[in-house]
Amino acid sequence: MNVMVNGRSRHYRTVAFDKATNSVRLIEQRLLPHEFKIISTASFQDTARAITDMVVRGAGAIGATAAYGLAQGARAFRGNDAAKFSAHVETVYQTLKAARPTAVDPVNAMNDVRRKMAAGGTVAEQQHLALAAAEQFADDDAEHCQAIGRHGAKLIRTGMNVLTHCNAGWLAFVDVGSATAPIYAAQAGGRKFHVYCDETRPRSQGATLTAWELAQQKVSHQVIADNAAGHLMQRGKIDLVIVGSDRTLGRTGEVANKIGTYTKAVLAKRHRIPFYVAIPLSTIDWNLRSGMDIPIEERNEGEVLGAWGVDERGRRQYVRVANPGSHAFNPGFDVTPAELITGIITPAGIFKPGQLWMKRRALGWASSAEK
Amino acid sequence: MNVMVNGRSRHYRTVAFDKATNSVRLIEQRLLPHEFKIISTASFQDTARAITDMVVRGAGAIGATAAYGLAQGARAFRGNDAAKFSAHVETVYQTLKAARPTAVDPVNAMNDVRRKMAAGGTVAEQQHLALAAAEQFADDDAEHCQAIGRHGAKLIRTGMNVLTHCNAGWLAFVDVGSATAPIYAAQAGGRKFHVYCDETRPRSQGATLTAWELAQQKVSHQVIADNAAGHLMQRGKIDLVIVGSDRTLGRTGEVANKIGTYTKAVLAKRHRIPFYVAIPLSTIDWNLRSGMDIPIEERNEGEVLGAWGVDERGRRQYVRVANPGSHAFNPGFDVTPAELITGIITPAGIFKPGQLWMKRRALGWASSAEK
Repeated sequence: MNVMVNGRSRHYRTVAFDKATNSVRLIEQRLLPHEFKIISTASFQDTARAITDMVVRGAGAIGATAAYGLAQGARAFRGNDAAKFSAHVETVYQTLKAARPTAVDPVNAMNDVRRKMAAGGTVAEQQHLALAAAEQFADDDAEHCQAIGRHGAKLIRTGMNVLTHCNAGWLAFVDVGSATAPIYAAQAGGRKFHVYCDETRPRSQGATLTAWELAQQKVSHQVIADNAAGHLMQRGKIDLVIVGSDRTLGRTGEVANKIGTYTKAVLAKRHRIPFYVAIPLSTIDWNLRSGMDIPIEERNEGEVLGAWGVDERGRRQYVRVANPGSHAFNPGFDVTPAELITGIITPAGIFKPGQLWMKRRALGWASSAEK
Repeated sequence: MNVMVNGRSRHYRTVAFDKATNSVRLIEQRLLPHEFKIISTASFQDTARAITDMVVRGAGAIGATAAYGLAQGARAFRGNDAAKFSAHVETVYQTLKAARPTAVDPVNAMNDVRRKMAAGGTVAEQQHLALAAAEQFADDDAEHCQAIGRHGAKLIRTGMNVLTHCNAGWLAFVDVGSATAPIYAAQAGGRKFHVYCDETRPRSQGATLTAWELAQQKVSHQVIADNAAGHLMQRGKIDLVIVGSDRTLGRTGEVANKIGTYTKAVLAKRHRIPFYVAIPLSTIDWNLRSGMDIPIEERNEGEVLGAWGVDERGRRQYVRVANPGSHAFNPGFDVTPAELITGIITPAGIFKPGQLWMKRRALGWASSAEK
């Protein structure tokens, strides 16, 4: 998507590759929204560290970063010894896999790259195929998001107020984003509407990343406290809710997403406001049989007890907000049942959550089962 | 309630009066939860300033502060000239009234004091009666909260998890509080339970004031992000919700309270969790016929766009969290309809919201109509 740099709007992907220097180029997301900076990783170890340190985050974005990182590592190998090359690639793979051990996207992306590399006869051919596969992975990720945008844009009409939660924006993918894709596509289609960004405590990704993205794209928006959405719905000021998903159960249509998503879905149901979840196919889990089986990560209590921001001198700073002696409970995700979800926007079209299993062949179930 | 000072637990009221120095003693609430300090106002002008500057906040607390401030001003008058005294008292009254122009409690409290002063024949008698009336007002406020506690404590059983929102605690009153009163009474009764404090963005009164209060009283508690309550309810971890109210409509049972209250009520209804509102009778509005007529204050967007806390050196600091170019929408309150409210805990007992009007004579309707 576009970013305003020195007063000019330029196109950037979240993750890209520079062939000349064999480096992965990443938007340094930890500095956002206060500073926009591109970093280049000099080695696959650097790339792994960028994943670990959250320079880059979001399912699609870390998938593409790992794919590029694998190609980067493969391309750094000197020589023609196939056995040594293979051992080297395994080291690269394990290093990148260990960078975010619980994430499934880097593994899937790297498996894809390795499968395609295997067609190469020589080390050089494999190195070439690795980069081509990583580029394809990134292009596909961007194209899937664009397809989500094409389908979802139909839901947004001029004059509407759209509520979003957290950041399932282009920063979480290679480009365009999932929950934001319909917004960008509707804007590109000339529609005029307004977006309310849930702040999304405790990590405030709505106030920081989503608001930054929308500002760069010049989409009309305001940040609201997570507490305010119910009031806005009650007063008729929300017409549509679009969120992303970390994991969607293909068998039940249940959606795991950032903490607070479930609350917005309950509110939307009460007010008969359409509630949509936008997802790439890779986030569909075809195995789990109940949302209650999804493990809910309990995160650091410091996130709830304080806030990160910049002080009046522009320095990044954590302040402790809560009573010094008190502790917090900090679940990172929640699960929204299918009955609260109007539709699931995928690159293959919009489906009722209960339709996913029936449509599983069109939605990547077979290819997922192959893995 | 009790506060730990230098390792010892001592009893404090939020607002008190020191006869010897003719000063109002206030907990400096702007320093909480990071510092506990009592300030003394040297004059009624100082007392008015403390109200304006939010040294003291909360319906009952500012009512008592204004009552004491009126007595303080009256007692500062030297001489016996009744006409001059009367003009002086009028000045004091207007000064304190202007300190928080939209608040109704200071005016009601001061009218009460003036009515009782009028029985005095001499200036000295009136001065004496003014202080007696202010003390009575403060004692009544504390006693009303204790009565709320006695009624509400029955709802809390050992093993329960109780959710609160914002701070309707003793800091908002002279002592004990409204929403917190049942909690303190249940604890005094030996019951063991746990309290989840909604952070209550954007001003975080739950994380700061309620958590501080509960910590002083050694009540088991944790702060949660406002986004987490729905998830906790879904997983069976909330048994009871108790909140306060800024205005309760006697005719409809609708409750205006801090933004986010409505959301918790919707969630509680879905999960069949009892949702109670604890109120002193003074917050019942017997006139308004619809919650939609309650004006919803739109507050400064800076509250949503950042956070106040202390940095690692213990300095109070505001950090900007949100994207620098973005704006916020910040409604301060919302309205919860009667159908979502299990009961309203008053000093006179617990009522269904629909019963308030029927029971209006027992609930202060007549005395309110007299005003």
